[in-house]
Amino acid sequence: MTYCVGLKLNRGLVFMSDTRTNAGVDNFSMTRKMFTWEVPGDRLITIMTAGNLATTQSLISLLEERSKATRERDPSILRAPTMFQVARLVGATLREIIAESAPTGSNSDSPFRASLIVGGQVKGSQPTLFLVYPEGNFIEATAETPYFQIGEAKYGKPILVRAFDPEMTFSEAAKLLLVSFDSTVKANLSVGLPFDLQTYEKDSFKVDRQIRIAMDDPMYQSISTGWGDALREAFNFLPSYEL
Amino acid sequence: MTYCVGLKLNRGLVFMSDTRTNAGVDNFSMTRKMFTWEVPGDRLITIMTAGNLATTQSLISLLEERSKATRERDPSILRAPTMFQVARLVGATLREIIAESAPTGSNSDSPFRASLIVGGQVKGSQPTLFLVYPEGNFIEATAETPYFQIGEAKYGKPILVRAFDPEMTFSEAAKLLLVSFDSTVKANLSVGLPFDLQTYEKDSFKVDRQIRIAMDDPMYQSISTGWGDALREAFNFLPSYEL
Repeated sequence: MTYCVGLKLNRGLVFMSDTRTNAGVDNFSMTRKMFTWEVPGDRLITIMTAGNLATTQSLISLLEERSKATRERDPSILRAPTMFQVARLVGATLREIIAESAPTGSNSDSPFRASLIVGGQVKGSQPTLFLVYPEGNFIEATAETPYFQIGEAKYGKPILVRAFDPEMTFSEAAKLLLVSFDSTVKANLSVGLPFDLQTYEKDSFKVDRQIRIAMDDPMYQSISTGWGDALREAFNFLPSYEL
Repeated sequence: MTYCVGLKLNRGLVFMSDTRTNAGVDNFSMTRKMFTWEVPGDRLITIMTAGNLATTQSLISLLEERSKATRERDPSILRAPTMFQVARLVGATLREIIAESAPTGSNSDSPFRASLIVGGQVKGSQPTLFLVYPEGNFIEATAETPYFQIGEAKYGKPILVRAFDPEMTFSEAAKLLLVSFDSTVKANLSVGLPFDLQTYEKDSFKVDRQIRIAMDDPMYQSISTGWGDALREAFNFLPSYEL
């Protein structure tokens, strides 16, 4: 599996993804799940992927190829006029790849499925996030649902529900995401470090920060340990249920 | 879905289950998922159920019937000499019910499946917990895995991983379970109040407490609100991830 989260803050967007890919437990490795296209002054598009690795790699390669071959008739995400059109293109490409693979004969129910978080900003519109389904359709983040999760989303959801605030700074958002990811890796073997983190400042049309956070990152270590201690302390401080 | 947790503490056992049952989102109601058989001085057996409701209701009825009809040839959980034999009987009964339903023609992959937590104590052996699979086989709680969850287990797992302690009192355990259940109901519609809570004191061979905790229970309210506040405070107190 995978765990990726995209947050829509008032000051911009924050993305985090893990890097573990596995087929069963005896075949696992590291792969990047966050991909960014940048046209300084015009647009920034970031895609995070969960699901079948062959599908998501094909998707990224095809999007990449089409954004480079200028005489290619197919439209490119670098020329789409809005983020909505970017999401439509990405969704259509995803559906195309899944459909291409489908008739070749796997017996599994939904063998080539993938989900995506597509986020960014195109000049002339606001920064936004989309959650793209394997069928190619998608939903957009709103004020009521200002973040999306894909992959192993359940373990890390409670802290997002309770601590997310659209006014957060990027550093606070990074902390929130690390707590959510740390809860997930402690409970599920299919999500693993290092994590990729990227921030995007509204109206900048370029990547703000892009870092890879490894197991031995001292700030990650202090958040992980600190969170364990803080949770136990908060828990001890709560009144018991008198029986 | 469902959410049930059984904890094995040094002083005894604690069980909690939710009461929501649903088929889709437009057909839901309340049902009990915790069932207890008590022979004062000899044994206490508690079963919590998750999965297909027709299966779990049949299971409980059949176990109940067989524990009453003394001339019934099938063995009863009230006569099994150990908890291990109780778990074997319950597992075999579960498998029997699923097998009976299977050939009648549902098309779904695993339509009649159910999982169980079986816990208790039979005179002459220690209190223990088993997790029974739909296939009828089971695993037992150990010092390394002193609790079991069934149903929507992911949201509420991180706090169990971090705050469980086998030395806890029953009141502390009830608090831990309420925090775990509260995180789950806040993130998943298929788990709902009221919750059933039962405690069993080692070597007592009778129910210690059995209560139903409703949404308006003031202690539940204070734990739920207090936990939200405590989480946010603990979160704010953590160092940010400096970018």
